[in-house]
Amino acid sequence: MKRSDRLVAMTNYLVEHPMELISLPFFSDMYGAAKSSISEDLAIINKVFKEDGIGYLESVSGAAGGVKYIPDVSKERAGKIIEKLCLELEDPSRILPGGYLFMSDILGNPSTVRNIGRLFASRFTGLNIDSVVTVATKGIPIAYAAAEFLHVPVIIVRRDPKVTEGSTVSINYVSGSSKKIQTMVLSKRSLSSRENVCIIDDFMKAGGTINGIKNLLQEFDANVKAIGVLAEAEDEEEDRVVEDYMSLVQIKNVDSTKRHIEVIKGNYFEYKNRE
Amino acid sequence: MKRSDRLVAMTNYLVEHPMELISLPFFSDMYGAAKSSISEDLAIINKVFKEDGIGYLESVSGAAGGVKYIPDVSKERAGKIIEKLCLELEDPSRILPGGYLFMSDILGNPSTVRNIGRLFASRFTGLNIDSVVTVATKGIPIAYAAAEFLHVPVIIVRRDPKVTEGSTVSINYVSGSSKKIQTMVLSKRSLSSRENVCIIDDFMKAGGTINGIKNLLQEFDANVKAIGVLAEAEDEEEDRVVEDYMSLVQIKNVDSTKRHIEVIKGNYFEYKNRE
Repeated sequence: MKRSDRLVAMTNYLVEHPMELISLPFFSDMYGAAKSSISEDLAIINKVFKEDGIGYLESVSGAAGGVKYIPDVSKERAGKIIEKLCLELEDPSRILPGGYLFMSDILGNPSTVRNIGRLFASRFTGLNIDSVVTVATKGIPIAYAAAEFLHVPVIIVRRDPKVTEGSTVSINYVSGSSKKIQTMVLSKRSLSSRENVCIIDDFMKAGGTINGIKNLLQEFDANVKAIGVLAEAEDEEEDRVVEDYMSLVQIKNVDSTKRHIEVIKGNYFEYKNRE
Repeated sequence: MKRSDRLVAMTNYLVEHPMELISLPFFSDMYGAAKSSISEDLAIINKVFKEDGIGYLESVSGAAGGVKYIPDVSKERAGKIIEKLCLELEDPSRILPGGYLFMSDILGNPSTVRNIGRLFASRFTGLNIDSVVTVATKGIPIAYAAAEFLHVPVIIVRRDPKVTEGSTVSINYVSGSSKKIQTMVLSKRSLSSRENVCIIDDFMKAGGTINGIKNLLQEFDANVKAIGVLAEAEDEEEDRVVEDYMSLVQIKNVDSTKRHIEVIKGNYFEYKNRE
């Protein structure tokens, strides 16, 4: 295969397999090229990925070595994505009774969802995450988008047990905002013991739901390495029960009477994960 | 930018923007290259995509012309994906009480989900689909995967109204297998009138749920152009209420006593969409 053909094929292979270690002999065999040529190809790809702001290739040396595509988002690219989210969310027609915001259209757009997932992943790639945990329903798409870039499975906590889940572990928790007692269930076979997980959800107010997930995950001896939410909102009535989370945007002020919403960037740019 | 760099950048751009018409001047400006060079690059990319079995580039001529990446799956690639799904589903440890199958692990794997979405999309790209409709919860990931390749939004039908959906339209329907009356709701602002939609779900037995979605979509004057399910199962007690669907696999026989499951390929290879 010619270099030009190889570059197309390898680029596609790498972006389809983020966070997977690929050995040089694998590429050599697949494209019928010497390892030295493959190395040169990878250098070109690495350079362009960096310039494009979509990540970089990490070389792992040694017998079990190879190359791994680490997805990342340049500061400039991240700024644009988050700015666009803020603008979209500030549209006053989103205001629903009770000061809630309609967000289904944003979460229904696969390219937006993919960008959101890439942002989460870019902050969590160094944490040895084994799986992404979310709660039904609205967090599911962004959890999958992040999991794709992290190359790990998604585990969905439900509010109601279903026969297709098999045996489940359930807990009761108090929702932060409404003070209601609610239930969460997780299929017993969905998670092994002592996994490293990150929790991803669309929205966090006081953090009662996220805290519920954390309690449920304790039953599986899981290690919560990171928490990511698309939007956080202030809750005047209550102190936040979750700390150490990352947010993309922050909903500051929803004024139903004046039909005005203020949305600013979250703590994404300041967030440092704990490794 | 050099040809080698351009090929990497353009390949990545195209796979990130399936089904989007991209003008040649856009690429020319972005990479600082003559239109003739861009055309040559596109010819190389098209050739490699075809050889790889992941689709092809469609040229649209004229003033508003350009190039569009049409995702597709070669017969060989599709065969392998579906065969692997069958093998995974035949694992007897999946059998749950009542003859149900545990599938959450398969639907929790983002690469599997992406492959499933690509298969659906490959059959629906010619149908001018405006949006993908699914029902919470298990169909959501495969609906997003298909929607990403089709470059359209996802609309999620729910079983319970939520305050964050705004005003909703709801219908009652009779579930095919259990004969119970159930409810489905869809946010009023999620769908415009007269859209072309495809319905995607994980599982279909008699088809009561899919039929419920169809009835709900009638309230929006939507045009159901295609129906895709990951797995179909036979229902001895009842005739199927949905025809003209595409399935990837077919669950033939679940014997809880003998702990045996038989899974064969669905009608994917025979399926012809109605255009």
